[in-house]
Amino acid sequence: MKALVYKSIGQVSLEEKPQPGLIAPTDAIIKILKTTICGTDLHILKGDVKEVPYGLTLGHEGIGIVEETGNAVTNFKKGDHVLISCITSCGKCEYCRKGMYSHCHEGGWILGHLIDGTQAEYVRIPYADTSLYHIPADTHEESLVMLSDILPTAYECGVLNGQVQPGTAVAIVGAGPIGLAALTTAQFFSPATIIMIDTDKHRLEVAKKMGATHAINSSEENVIETVMALTEYEGVDTAMEAVGIPATFELCTRLIRPGGKVANIGVHGKSVSLALEDLWSKNITITTRLVDTCTTPMLLKTVSSKKLDPASFITHRFKFSEIETAYSTFGNAAKEKALKVIISNEY
Amino acid sequence: MKALVYKSIGQVSLEEKPQPGLIAPTDAIIKILKTTICGTDLHILKGDVKEVPYGLTLGHEGIGIVEETGNAVTNFKKGDHVLISCITSCGKCEYCRKGMYSHCHEGGWILGHLIDGTQAEYVRIPYADTSLYHIPADTHEESLVMLSDILPTAYECGVLNGQVQPGTAVAIVGAGPIGLAALTTAQFFSPATIIMIDTDKHRLEVAKKMGATHAINSSEENVIETVMALTEYEGVDTAMEAVGIPATFELCTRLIRPGGKVANIGVHGKSVSLALEDLWSKNITITTRLVDTCTTPMLLKTVSSKKLDPASFITHRFKFSEIETAYSTFGNAAKEKALKVIISNEY
Amino acid sequence: MKALVYKSIGQVSLEEKPQPGLIAPTDAIIKILKTTICGTDLHILKGDVKEVPYGLTLGHEGIGIVEETGNAVTNFKKGDHVLISCITSCGKCEYCRKGMYSHCHEGGWILGHLIDGTQAEYVRIPYADTSLYHIPADTHEESLVMLSDILPTAYECGVLNGQVQPGTAVAIVGAGPIGLAALTTAQFFSPATIIMIDTDKHRLEVAKKMGATHAINSSEENVIETVMALTEYEGVDTAMEAVGIPATFELCTRLIRPGGKVANIGVHGKSVSLALEDLWSKNITITTRLVDTCTTPMLLKTVSSKKLDPASFITHRFKFSEIETAYSTFGNAAKEKALKVIISNEY
Amino acid sequence: MKALVYKSIGQVSLEEKPQPGLIAPTDAIIKILKTTICGTDLHILKGDVKEVPYGLTLGHEGIGIVEETGNAVTNFKKGDHVLISCITSCGKCEYCRKGMYSHCHEGGWILGHLIDGTQAEYVRIPYADTSLYHIPADTHEESLVMLSDILPTAYECGVLNGQVQPGTAVAIVGAGPIGLAALTTAQFFSPATIIMIDTDKHRLEVAKKMGATHAINSSEENVIETVMALTEYEGVDTAMEAVGIPATFELCTRLIRPGGKVANIGVHGKSVSLALEDLWSKNITITTRLVDTCTTPMLLKTVSSKKLDPASFITHRFKFSEIETAYSTFGNAAKEKALKVIISNEY
Repeated sequence: MKALVYKSIGQVSLEEKPQPGLIAPTDAIIKILKTTICGTDLHILKGDVKEVPYGLTLGHEGIGIVEETGNAVTNFKKGDHVLISCITSCGKCEYCRKGMYSHCHEGGWILGHLIDGTQAEYVRIPYADTSLYHIPADTHEESLVMLSDILPTAYECGVLNGQVQPGTAVAIVGAGPIGLAALTTAQFFSPATIIMIDTDKHRLEVAKKMGATHAINSSEENVIETVMALTEYEGVDTAMEAVGIPATFELCTRLIRPGGKVANIGVHGKSVSLALEDLWSKNITITTRLVDTCTTPMLLKTVSSKKLDPASFITHRFKFSEIETAYSTFGNAAKEKALKVIISNEY
Repeated sequence: MKALVYKSIGQVSLEEKPQPGLIAPTDAIIKILKTTICGTDLHILKGDVKEVPYGLTLGHEGIGIVEETGNAVTNFKKGDHVLISCITSCGKCEYCRKGMYSHCHEGGWILGHLIDGTQAEYVRIPYADTSLYHIPADTHEESLVMLSDILPTAYECGVLNGQVQPGTAVAIVGAGPIGLAALTTAQFFSPATIIMIDTDKHRLEVAKKMGATHAINSSEENVIETVMALTEYEGVDTAMEAVGIPATFELCTRLIRPGGKVANIGVHGKSVSLALEDLWSKNITITTRLVDTCTTPMLLKTVSSKKLDPASFITHRFKFSEIETAYSTFGNAAKEKALKVIISNEY
Repeated sequence: MKALVYKSIGQVSLEEKPQPGLIAPTDAIIKILKTTICGTDLHILKGDVKEVPYGLTLGHEGIGIVEETGNAVTNFKKGDHVLISCITSCGKCEYCRKGMYSHCHEGGWILGHLIDGTQAEYVRIPYADTSLYHIPADTHEESLVMLSDILPTAYECGVLNGQVQPGTAVAIVGAGPIGLAALTTAQFFSPATIIMIDTDKHRLEVAKKMGATHAINSSEENVIETVMALTEYEGVDTAMEAVGIPATFELCTRLIRPGGKVANIGVHGKSVSLALEDLWSKNITITTRLVDTCTTPMLLKTVSSKKLDPASFITHRFKFSEIETAYSTFGNAAKEKALKVIISNEY
Repeated sequence: MKALVYKSIGQVSLEEKPQPGLIAPTDAIIKILKTTICGTDLHILKGDVKEVPYGLTLGHEGIGIVEETGNAVTNFKKGDHVLISCITSCGKCEYCRKGMYSHCHEGGWILGHLIDGTQAEYVRIPYADTSLYHIPADTHEESLVMLSDILPTAYECGVLNGQVQPGTAVAIVGAGPIGLAALTTAQFFSPATIIMIDTDKHRLEVAKKMGATHAINSSEENVIETVMALTEYEGVDTAMEAVGIPATFELCTRLIRPGGKVANIGVHGKSVSLALEDLWSKNITITTRLVDTCTTPMLLKTVSSKKLDPASFITHRFKFSEIETAYSTFGNAAKEKALKVIISNEY
């Protein structure tokens, strides 16, 4: 089969690889229908994620068809259409029993990271019963690729950890795909105000269309002053960090009111400075989280009931044979006005 | 009357001052029976709390007798014995209505900070109905001075924010009065393990007597290694910072397991470094808080029912005329083996 | 001044009464601009609320202008436009400090119940600082009468107690004003399914327009069977009782899935049967609540931000001189297709 | 092997049966070391639990040694000492993923109910990885039989659902084994007051020794009056029903204060009357629950750390050959002063 292989820093190539087979009785083999590229895949390419071995097939998102199942798999059978979670959950360890699948002793984020991933014609999914989801009838199948990672990530790390509630004020720093996914799912809770902050004019326009009540271009305006003016000089209830650099994290801690929450979504490569001399008495909460994908069943219900339209994140479509072009388009997302790209298992 | 006055950096003096009178209809005048000294008073003396004006009477803790009340005060009358909260709460603003009295628009921490405090023969308490508490019959009155600040601070900022639960593992960094108060009130929730960390051998011995299951002398042992060994190499569920310096805060973030909580209690004067490159994916929660004293009624019930013995924190007693000695004893707490000192309105 | 007086069972009359004056320093006198009639007022008229004395002015809802304030009132001054809460909160007692204003030791529901109410030209509001709310600029003032009682009642007793969450299934039994208010505010949390149940065809049509995903006419369909078919034979996550009779409460307990919530909103005059022989093992939660109006500030924010349009509940308008006609219209709500009536202080 | 078989209403007999074998790859076969008898077993005997087929081996509690495991079992191996949960959890269904194992689509309470149980020399445990627990070193193995059912039941259905908190007042109606287990585990949260209510003098004495602050003999005293006198005429915060009859449930609803919780633990065979005409406005919460045993890992930690001593519930010990005597002793528990009996796999 064809697979996109991580060759070395800066290099991927579409290669022929043997089709994966079952290893454990809890495995399933999935024929990929659609996959996508994540910001994390770009990090891997840059060499930021040291533990990824050369030769690995990348990708941790996708939908597909069950090809084969181990003898202990009971929830799925050959032919089922399934959504693949970016997080593998054994369902049995202490963390899985608590719903914190991200720290599963046997799984967690392993796809396209420690084991071969979804940017291939076939993928082996360990612990299939607790790592795959049935695709509901009447949903726009392709768009569910957005539920592998980006939507649960934004919702769990940003919206739930940030405790967005009706009538509250929310700031989201970063209007890339993940920030926009946070914007979209924050609206499940009807906040009064959602302020989107970015340096890219086009993305801020998209944010306004997706429901932001205010957009601040941080290259043109003083963000803190504007946010304070919009919140009666109290600050927001929730600030979400959706970039992953020290400056944006530190900004978040300046935007919140007493009792406010900073919900980190971004992947960070550096330490940040935390101004405890100001913050120690402000009754704040800061959270971090690797997505657990424990809300995937709930998100599927919001898709079925038309409360959430994951298709709105798709800006580009490619055939699998064009995946290298897809990488370069997604790698120049701002210039290409790209949010998420769909890659179909076609040639 | 006599009052302890903040003269300038490094200088306090016991002076004659006019007795305070009612200003607003919601005020009460309290004759002080007992007061104490807080670590924060030492910070003021060092000049760390810039907004305190020279000439102010210090102190934000104490018990006393109601001397006079404004015409809108309905919960208290002349002669009532009362506990004074370190936090003044108007009961009417947005924050008071949420139970976050620390950020009361009219009050918060003002006693001995922005208005004359309790280290005097008399004190004026604004918003008396919502800032004083009746002393329950059958309690050891003197010991309730510990409920003005130290016990609610440790309980709210450390134990509640740290979400201590039955069967969990807790680390407390700092075995001073506030750390020991956290140790004591953490036991309300029956954690399996409470690890106390300090550099002072005597304080660690006290901690063991007060219920710590383990004590680590950080000047002799590698704290992280020892904590990991005690927690099956997972880390603790809750780490409380009870010192107020960068090193101890940063230590706390290294001691917790995935899903763990860092509950800051310490007063900080400097920024700290937060290792988001490691922590972004650990599903952690960091909290800060200025005590709200919203749990004071509950703490009074635990005292009445003998679940909490606040007298255990009292190591020294002074007359008001000896208050300067009291300051120097408390200022050399480790050497003097002092936890909290009681100052009686006697001569 | 003119006031609507409860004369005896079945009888009210519009009479001349002395204008109320200040009694306590925490009182305010409000000139009424708009008021309305509640289902509870009809209960009083029928003699169901025994403690209401003959001669009392009815009404516990309204907006108005501050005419005079006691010397301890600090949040409001003459001329302020205010929303009157149906619940009077002293702000100082144990229950007020917990946010459970409904059980305030000094207040609770007293307006038009134990003291003269709002169906008059003027009303005295005790504890004004904690029982009135400023009317935000740019809101449709008249419509805020819906925030005195009906909207916080539906939201607190139904939606919050029922723990409505994104993606869940909700059933609301009763499509009168309170049921429709629950339907409207449930949507703050984006449930996947909201099933409205009533016997009145018109009200069910209104419910569909207001966002119900399904409507069941219980005089024509088997409610339990239909709800089960709509929920994969599991039942709903939340069932709200918005009628106040045993049959509808018992129905709610039959509609929920394991782990489900029954949130009672209705005012009940009789005991109900609870089928514990079936329910003991179903992991259910049943809640009751007298509205606390603790969410009024938050609801005002949802109105300001256009997430909630309280005007949608207003179907009829009357002058104060026509208030007796207003009672008969509201008393025949189904026939008159009435939801809520607005009564203006005009002649 | 020998097994205690349910023959018909009122009749059990110790019989020879074939030893169970593996059926599914997720099964384990356990050699029983110790088992016990539950109140539910007596209900089965009386014919109250209609779905139990004649011929079934009874029992859903016990500890043992793993004899054999299916090829998908990874957490346990031959020779491991294990605690058997009364609830079988597949770990994969919607309810298991939420922690509500009681309603597992494939499991739940099936042992000694729908499939052969633990009152035998060997038992087959389906979904072994998620239905068994390793026995910690240094624990009193025999006493852990109390963690199969009675302790998690009391803790989850009574203490957690009842939201027992530090400083609160708790009433427990019924001082049998389950009520005493609730008494014991309620103390994890340091309530100020625990009032035990029963008609049996001996059990009330046991309750006092186990930590009840007050004991009321309901055959001698007016329970409501006494409870009100003990709680400043407010009522308790939490009332737990640990009997299973209408009178005790209805009593619980009369004992709670506004905002109080009624946590049902008892197994009920009849409907109860709920006085909604009084309760609709009292802001109460009523919960039911079949134990999920989701707290078993946490309870094991409280045993290891000596916060919980499950041995205190054991009053009688029998050999397996004496199991019929054990039934009659446990069936006359009050007269025999029996709490829980231990049955050893010896002859």
